[in-house]
Amino acid sequence: MSLEAVDIAMIRASAARLEGHARRTPLLSSPFLDKIAGRPVFVKAECLQHTGSFKFRGAWSAITALPQGARGVIAFSSGNHAQGVAYAAGLRGLPAVIIMPRDAPAIKIANTRALGAEVVLYDRATEDRDALGAELAAARGLELIQPFDHPQVIAGQGSTGLEIAAQARAHGITQAEVLVCCGGGGLTSGIALALEAEAPEMRVRTVEPEGFDDVAKSLASGTVVTHPARSGLCDAIVTPAPGRLTWPILQRLCGPGLVVSEAQALRAMALAHERLKLVLEPGGAVALAAALFHPEKIDAKAVIVTASGGNVDRAVFLRALEEGAGHGDG
Amino acid sequence: MSLEAVDIAMIRASAARLEGHARRTPLLSSPFLDKIAGRPVFVKAECLQHTGSFKFRGAWSAITALPQGARGVIAFSSGNHAQGVAYAAGLRGLPAVIIMPRDAPAIKIANTRALGAEVVLYDRATEDRDALGAELAAARGLELIQPFDHPQVIAGQGSTGLEIAAQARAHGITQAEVLVCCGGGGLTSGIALALEAEAPEMRVRTVEPEGFDDVAKSLASGTVVTHPARSGLCDAIVTPAPGRLTWPILQRLCGPGLVVSEAQALRAMALAHERLKLVLEPGGAVALAAALFHPEKIDAKAVIVTASGGNVDRAVFLRALEEGAGHGDG
Repeated sequence: MSLEAVDIAMIRASAARLEGHARRTPLLSSPFLDKIAGRPVFVKAECLQHTGSFKFRGAWSAITALPQGARGVIAFSSGNHAQGVAYAAGLRGLPAVIIMPRDAPAIKIANTRALGAEVVLYDRATEDRDALGAELAAARGLELIQPFDHPQVIAGQGSTGLEIAAQARAHGITQAEVLVCCGGGGLTSGIALALEAEAPEMRVRTVEPEGFDDVAKSLASGTVVTHPARSGLCDAIVTPAPGRLTWPILQRLCGPGLVVSEAQALRAMALAHERLKLVLEPGGAVALAAALFHPEKIDAKAVIVTASGGNVDRAVFLRALEEGAGHGDG
Repeated sequence: MSLEAVDIAMIRASAARLEGHARRTPLLSSPFLDKIAGRPVFVKAECLQHTGSFKFRGAWSAITALPQGARGVIAFSSGNHAQGVAYAAGLRGLPAVIIMPRDAPAIKIANTRALGAEVVLYDRATEDRDALGAELAAARGLELIQPFDHPQVIAGQGSTGLEIAAQARAHGITQAEVLVCCGGGGLTSGIALALEAEAPEMRVRTVEPEGFDDVAKSLASGTVVTHPARSGLCDAIVTPAPGRLTWPILQRLCGPGLVVSEAQALRAMALAHERLKLVLEPGGAVALAAALFHPEKIDAKAVIVTASGGNVDRAVFLRALEEGAGHGDG
């Protein structure tokens, strides 16, 4: 397992490879949000990262750590990981194959292709995704990049934590709760490892949508809890369980987990639009929602949240603006 | 006049006072926008500045340059300047009085008050705004901060240009056309002075909405052209003429002016939403619109645009998303 363990040295090495390639996204705030939350709220705006989410960091980290002679990469994703891998591979001049279900939204297929990847579609009902991927990988010599259970992906996401520590320090903040939108736990575990080294007085907490709170339940019970795979509004973070590599890190460093409703995620999207001028997707807004609408569950004087992605369908965004209207300040 | 002349030394001094107070906003890009424009497009995201527009820079610059013993500031504005002055004064612990027409949108009045200013309303039909302001200023010892015809305001906006030069250089760009959303010309003239010193191979061009192209016409004719004062969708930049202090700078350093339609501004807002995850207001989107929809009028290999503000009413934003849909890539 030692080959798989992620440590702060790997995160620092990833951050060095990301320098000049990933964006150092800003840490934003608004007096209007501070007032709602009852404390200073800082928002790490990873929706401004290349391809609209933090996923570019992990993808670039993994791709730049490939052995010499790698002939390309392959990933299973119809979402942010697909776009991050496609764009990072393109910048490195490497072929990328992204395997998506045939019923994925047309815009996601088109975006991933436009970023330079070859998209291979499969039929969820009749085809075995993993077998198809293994066959393609073997035939073409492609390296699989997992969305979170990959040491270099976790290390790349951890670069977000190094930036949070430095940017918070510039604001005079060394003690805070750091709320992270959590799916499989790649971003959360990377940030937790980075802050353990760089800002040990910060505590990392996961945030998930109601009904998809496998990590909160796992942290509470001390053992991995799995919920059935299904879809939800916060599609970027509805994984059924924490990862094999991420779980031990989450268990050691993070918690207790926070949970928000989908309606709260939509209200947070409307407030990010109005007060921060940021576009968030539901799964990227849950940490902000927890800071704004569950202040009684937070102890620290300051809170830092990840706004981890902004790839939202227009219809969902319109719903957020409409449902979020008039509830903005409460 | 020498007391009023803005030069690069004043801009650098303003930038030093802004350090740690204004945000160094990111310079963003998207391969999707590059493709539409036919060249690399970099977007200086001033909508992410405090209070949602670049106006905070000029306000902070002017307020920190006040003589010792200043008792407060006063401004006439119902828009971005009002919020910038209110917030900057509050941070400095100085009283701010903002004079607004009684029929200004309730949300703008509420926001300005929430930022700590005293809002004084007047009746456009029966009251003389300037007389009211002069009376209040004299009675309370308040300093007037003009929205653009104020040397320290121009110098503060110029700090945007210093950042553009440095950020573009980090991308290897020293030659570019720099398109600036232009109302009275405070931001444009400040950026032009900064780039004259820091990036002399860049050319600054103004961008205005159709029907409000007083600066483009003034630049073309070599003399100030004034259009009747009236309102428009791009409300942040519908001033009737360039300013007394800004015009000589614009004339010496900028042009030719570009003009876009309101429909193009709305399409640029939809694309900024989709591809950059930024919220823009119509007046803050005209420069991006020119880069995307008038590429034949641009000579340089790269283009840099200001996204100067994001304070947009929900109804206007919804209109942009609806009208901009489906036209995104053409």
